[in-house]
Amino acid sequence: MNPTTTVITGIGELTTNTDEFGTLHDAALVLEGEWVRWVGPASAAPDADHHLDVHGRAVLPGWVDSHTHLVFAGDRTAEFGARMRGVPYSAGGIRTTVEATRAADDQVLAATLHRLRAEALHQGTTYMETKTGYGLTVADEKRCAALAAEVADEVTFLGAHVVPAEYTAEEYVDLVCGPMLDAVVDHVRWIDVFCETGAFDAEQSARVLAAGRAKGLGLRVHGNQLGYGPGVQLAVEYGAASVDHCTHLTDDDVEALAASTTIATLLPACDLSTRQPLAQARRLLDAGARIALATNANPGSSYTTSMAFCVSTAVLQMRLSVDEAIWAATAGGALALGRDLSADGAVGVIRPGARADLHILDAPSAVHLAYRPGVPLTWAVWHRGVPAVVGY
Amino acid sequence: MNPTTTVITGIGELTTNTDEFGTLHDAALVLEGEWVRWVGPASAAPDADHHLDVHGRAVLPGWVDSHTHLVFAGDRTAEFGARMRGVPYSAGGIRTTVEATRAADDQVLAATLHRLRAEALHQGTTYMETKTGYGLTVADEKRCAALAAEVADEVTFLGAHVVPAEYTAEEYVDLVCGPMLDAVVDHVRWIDVFCETGAFDAEQSARVLAAGRAKGLGLRVHGNQLGYGPGVQLAVEYGAASVDHCTHLTDDDVEALAASTTIATLLPACDLSTRQPLAQARRLLDAGARIALATNANPGSSYTTSMAFCVSTAVLQMRLSVDEAIWAATAGGALALGRDLSADGAVGVIRPGARADLHILDAPSAVHLAYRPGVPLTWAVWHRGVPAVVGY
Repeated sequence: MNPTTTVITGIGELTTNTDEFGTLHDAALVLEGEWVRWVGPASAAPDADHHLDVHGRAVLPGWVDSHTHLVFAGDRTAEFGARMRGVPYSAGGIRTTVEATRAADDQVLAATLHRLRAEALHQGTTYMETKTGYGLTVADEKRCAALAAEVADEVTFLGAHVVPAEYTAEEYVDLVCGPMLDAVVDHVRWIDVFCETGAFDAEQSARVLAAGRAKGLGLRVHGNQLGYGPGVQLAVEYGAASVDHCTHLTDDDVEALAASTTIATLLPACDLSTRQPLAQARRLLDAGARIALATNANPGSSYTTSMAFCVSTAVLQMRLSVDEAIWAATAGGALALGRDLSADGAVGVIRPGARADLHILDAPSAVHLAYRPGVPLTWAVWHRGVPAVVGY
Repeated sequence: MNPTTTVITGIGELTTNTDEFGTLHDAALVLEGEWVRWVGPASAAPDADHHLDVHGRAVLPGWVDSHTHLVFAGDRTAEFGARMRGVPYSAGGIRTTVEATRAADDQVLAATLHRLRAEALHQGTTYMETKTGYGLTVADEKRCAALAAEVADEVTFLGAHVVPAEYTAEEYVDLVCGPMLDAVVDHVRWIDVFCETGAFDAEQSARVLAAGRAKGLGLRVHGNQLGYGPGVQLAVEYGAASVDHCTHLTDDDVEALAASTTIATLLPACDLSTRQPLAQARRLLDAGARIALATNANPGSSYTTSMAFCVSTAVLQMRLSVDEAIWAATAGGALALGRDLSADGAVGVIRPGARADLHILDAPSAVHLAYRPGVPLTWAVWHRGVPAVVGY
């Protein structure tokens, strides 16, 4: 039996993120099972089993959130409040969450993970990465990776998040690159390291990346978040898929990114929540670098799942056009996760063969995401061909 | 028959905005009909006809949005897009909306007004002001005022929004202060004037305020939005309830506000959407001035109904504490609308005798409004004692 087909008509504006289709008006789509089968003008739409008229609303690919930390327990509301009163953010706050996460049983961790995944889906996020990094023992990183793999589309091993109090940095890097990596490797596709003053230096970070690569993992780096540093150059040198934060960049860093395949993943909600300057998105794009936008959802530095907030901030305050910001929050995120935008099963794009991950806005155009900041505009979400949020 | 009573228990954090109650933990509330009847610790809560346990969620007064322009027709998406590409905002854009509003029939205007009022209510706004100002003929201002009065809690006459192309400024001020004011006065409680380069100068603005006062209307001023100007001093001199925008203030302006009863109403979504600097909320509070936060919802300079966006921006970027921002978006808005916070029927506060306008968050504390920017946190809204949004 063939999968069910659905034709969606009355699309006021369709953002495809593809060269073939671009932005279409008065468009239609046909979905077949969990895939997009056909894209074109409404007047030429073929028949299908089901028909949905979206009455002039805007349709775009579901958000691809390529940077979250959702396996955690505990609360850092008080730390956030103190920060808003002027206490600077430091990487050391991560240890608060580590302590709570180690003490939490799997059911508690899974409940938070599922709740935040659902919260994100209800706001249009249809593809999500998440990380370990609050366990920081072999056993805790392993269970965090296994839990993450049940919920997230992509899982990253971030044993090298911060050095736990019970180790020297060198001892801990040995553990991360040895027994801890062995314990998690079956649950994860990526390895990541927090290359920053107070976390891991360039040499330690390089060891982590090399160890992950030797096990066949893709590479990601947290870099240049709280100040200038070696993270970006290291990511480019190792051919990482993404270097995330990029809040403090030298001209050399920008040039290196522009000459590389590494995506600069910008995390504006984190910049605001830690009172850092907003990352210089315009400077990166103008230099020829490619960027993604992601939430960095985590209880310390950026406790939001709202990709729409990231997009509106990028337009209102980081000088991206709406098209650039949406691309970065969909196709850009997919590239940051090593996904081929033209392969079958692609995410972050709408074209035949892509995954049927759609975000339908209660607005006639995607511009409204920045024109109407804070207004919940998600009207419907299709996730793998299934209506997960239904406004009709 | 007595009105129905409801006891709400399990309140994780109750923001009352009153000196007597402050912020309570493990609190309970009793509502009777459309009023709050009792506030106190859960252990002492009296019985009631109905019982709602909110399981540790935060409860605060519904938002008071003291500055919106919701009687309009037409679309300015393209103008917004151009602005994000660098075209400066100018007051002249208002004329686009005037043209569309004049051409729209009452049903079209009412539909937009009801849609946006409902959208705001669903985000926790339980008391709302709105203005005329897109008609700018005697007949159009009159019908806009009448439509507004059907939907908004407070209506402001803003005939002096911009000078229509068919008049000189002096001729138009004569019209506003004479036949137009006479035509609208039964529908409105306030008069307002856009005192700004490109709109009305100090002398013209003073004439509008004096004419409104002579008819018994309360006074409001749009001032100091796009540059330094006389608006703030004029508002203080005339004892206006509020001067709105306050984006560009001299030290003299700040001192005048601090020494007055005039509320400085700040509109951060507008500042961002017009690429102005954010108003200096901290400077005003530190000087002893009182502030309100409002959306300025309108299709040109600030097309959002999200008070939560204004609050999160105020905390993350304008250096207000969460308590200060929430106060400004509730009690501050009420004061900007001339409401007595301790009178029976008060809005913006939760205490016996206040209107039963509650905003219940899907979060344990109000800090989450800034800690989790962009995430729709509204779990339930009680409006005049009636559950208007129900998350349970």
